[in-house]
Amino acid sequence: MKKIAIGQAGGPTSVINATLVGFVKQTMSKCSLSFIRNGYDGLVHGEFIEGNDTTLQWITQHEKVPGACLGSGRYPLSDEEIEKAVRILREKRIDALVFIGGNGTMEALYKVGVEANRQGYDLQVIGLPKTVDNDLGCTDHAPGFGSAAKYVAQTTRDMSRDLHAMQNFEQVRILETMGRNAGWLAAASGFLKTYEEEGPHFIALPERQMNHEKLLQSVETALYRYGFAIVVVSEGVLWNQGAQVERDVVGGRSVLGGISKEIELYLKQELNIMARSELLGMNQRSYSLAVSSVDQSEAYFVGVTGADWIKEGRSGLMVAIERTKGLAYSIHLKPVALGAVVRAGERVMPDQFIDNLKSYYEWLEPIIGDHVSPYPPLFQMRDVKSS
Amino acid sequence: MKKIAIGQAGGPTSVINATLVGFVKQTMSKCSLSFIRNGYDGLVHGEFIEGNDTTLQWITQHEKVPGACLGSGRYPLSDEEIEKAVRILREKRIDALVFIGGNGTMEALYKVGVEANRQGYDLQVIGLPKTVDNDLGCTDHAPGFGSAAKYVAQTTRDMSRDLHAMQNFEQVRILETMGRNAGWLAAASGFLKTYEEEGPHFIALPERQMNHEKLLQSVETALYRYGFAIVVVSEGVLWNQGAQVERDVVGGRSVLGGISKEIELYLKQELNIMARSELLGMNQRSYSLAVSSVDQSEAYFVGVTGADWIKEGRSGLMVAIERTKGLAYSIHLKPVALGAVVRAGERVMPDQFIDNLKSYYEWLEPIIGDHVSPYPPLFQMRDVKSS
Repeated sequence: MKKIAIGQAGGPTSVINATLVGFVKQTMSKCSLSFIRNGYDGLVHGEFIEGNDTTLQWITQHEKVPGACLGSGRYPLSDEEIEKAVRILREKRIDALVFIGGNGTMEALYKVGVEANRQGYDLQVIGLPKTVDNDLGCTDHAPGFGSAAKYVAQTTRDMSRDLHAMQNFEQVRILETMGRNAGWLAAASGFLKTYEEEGPHFIALPERQMNHEKLLQSVETALYRYGFAIVVVSEGVLWNQGAQVERDVVGGRSVLGGISKEIELYLKQELNIMARSELLGMNQRSYSLAVSSVDQSEAYFVGVTGADWIKEGRSGLMVAIERTKGLAYSIHLKPVALGAVVRAGERVMPDQFIDNLKSYYEWLEPIIGDHVSPYPPLFQMRDVKSS
Repeated sequence: MKKIAIGQAGGPTSVINATLVGFVKQTMSKCSLSFIRNGYDGLVHGEFIEGNDTTLQWITQHEKVPGACLGSGRYPLSDEEIEKAVRILREKRIDALVFIGGNGTMEALYKVGVEANRQGYDLQVIGLPKTVDNDLGCTDHAPGFGSAAKYVAQTTRDMSRDLHAMQNFEQVRILETMGRNAGWLAAASGFLKTYEEEGPHFIALPERQMNHEKLLQSVETALYRYGFAIVVVSEGVLWNQGAQVERDVVGGRSVLGGISKEIELYLKQELNIMARSELLGMNQRSYSLAVSSVDQSEAYFVGVTGADWIKEGRSGLMVAIERTKGLAYSIHLKPVALGAVVRAGERVMPDQFIDNLKSYYEWLEPIIGDHVSPYPPLFQMRDVKSS
């Protein structure tokens, strides 16, 4: 009976457990499963959980639960630790190693595979994608992104209505999204925008140089026309041509957050208005009421497919999503070499989407799945007849 | 035909438009309606919108739309402005004035009624309650609160799962809720807590003195037992026995926000851990995916009832919610004098709820309405067999 170890790594998403459950349900009757706690940290420290009846039952209850139920986390592996990881897997006679994660996870998995190979140890490695930032290469999109995008889009539309009503008290709100160096999530904020007067009125993406003049102009125009302005900024946008705005550094990894506050202060000073910045925060990756049903089921089938590939003896691959050609949206899960994913690096938004957000939103629509239907138009100041 | 003017005031909620639509649908065929823009600001400045076919149709489309579609905002009325408001209403031959709002709104409405009376002008005034803070007196609860409480409760449960998975990177998250001087919303964060290990592990309410020792102890205990800790704090909690933490002052009104950051810095220093503070922000009052169906329909019927009372010639009243006695939850809408609401002032959480959160959650359950069923238990560190 094949022995498989599976773990989750990186920031959780609201559907990363769906991938785990898809994998487990497809595997549990045919293989011996063990679960790695807390991502690569647990792998290096030998924290494995036996896949007995109790744990299997417990895990399969998580199909619709956010967070990573095995524990996840960030843990950059040194070369020594990769060697150690391989030794541990070998001692445990693991035949296949599976990790659900993003760029960092795929790179580590690739290296583990190479090291096993070097030692002449026949280890299958399969990567299952997840990321809310959508910055994973070689796949049309990654599970987790659709739900996060839905959260950001709905938040922006709802806050437009809220701020519009408060304009005699507060005029500008700056919403900061996740995304690190990729603007997919920030750009998704405009997906539900139906009317000119609705926010966002300005979106700042990390792919482009911040343009203070254009920011100011867009906000002033919105204030003049609609009485309020919504600005959306990706956490990774560079301010003043300098560095990204950090709120913390943990284990050498920069925790971004604060660019929205810089913009708040700037706009207050330039325009003498009341502005408020908001980090949209961890709800982007965990809020269960915003889960996209399409994202949820794709996440699940990515897990199922990974399990099938293990059974077929495939290795060194990530399960990637490809859109099938045709009018209606449908996907095909295809193998890409882990090495290719590593070489592709962080995937930022392509120019054709940045320059034409409409085409981006057409691409995005099926991934976001069901969403609230459009609201009626906002009342505008110029409609009011003072008497 | 009776002439009615209606407006919305204070911070919007995700169901304040439902109250407006309930009122309008019950009234539109029998009365002449006009709409006041931007709350009391619009009243004093004569910004009225005629209730013609176009506007009536536009307004009734907002039943499930967050924000206040007429415009709302904060605008404290001086005595001169109250006189001016009454003069304007008189000139327009308004028979009845209706405002949807919270404490400040009811007080202004009461004063307008008193001033009209002094002038011998026969003006009906009716107040319709709304507040996410639930700090309005003389009513069991106010529309808007149930949906906000649902947002806070679901967020806390989901973030528990997220943070649990990230504990090798980040150990403490401090969530800051709305509520000003009342802890109803912050306390709601524990409503969906099913297991000891789930957050919140500490809740700070403005009704009680902040206890640093107890905060530290609760966080340390949670870190030791579960590896992570979720702290929830109401924006109005006093820090260091001093003042509330302000992020801004607009028109003399303090905009709260920042106590969670103080706690973050304090815990980082005392415990040498990674902590992150998050303001839950405007989604608490506007996120449409978190609307409680019960809250939504109660908001609607508060509007319908206000319309009936206007028809019956009643005045000087707020529509209050009373629970009917019996096993199943049901409500009765009863009149309370606006003067009594003003005298009652801001309603904070009563001691019996603070001292026994379980009884508070029993009280809260029907208002939150449908919610996601419990998650499976969290895996705990002590369950892991390292090998």
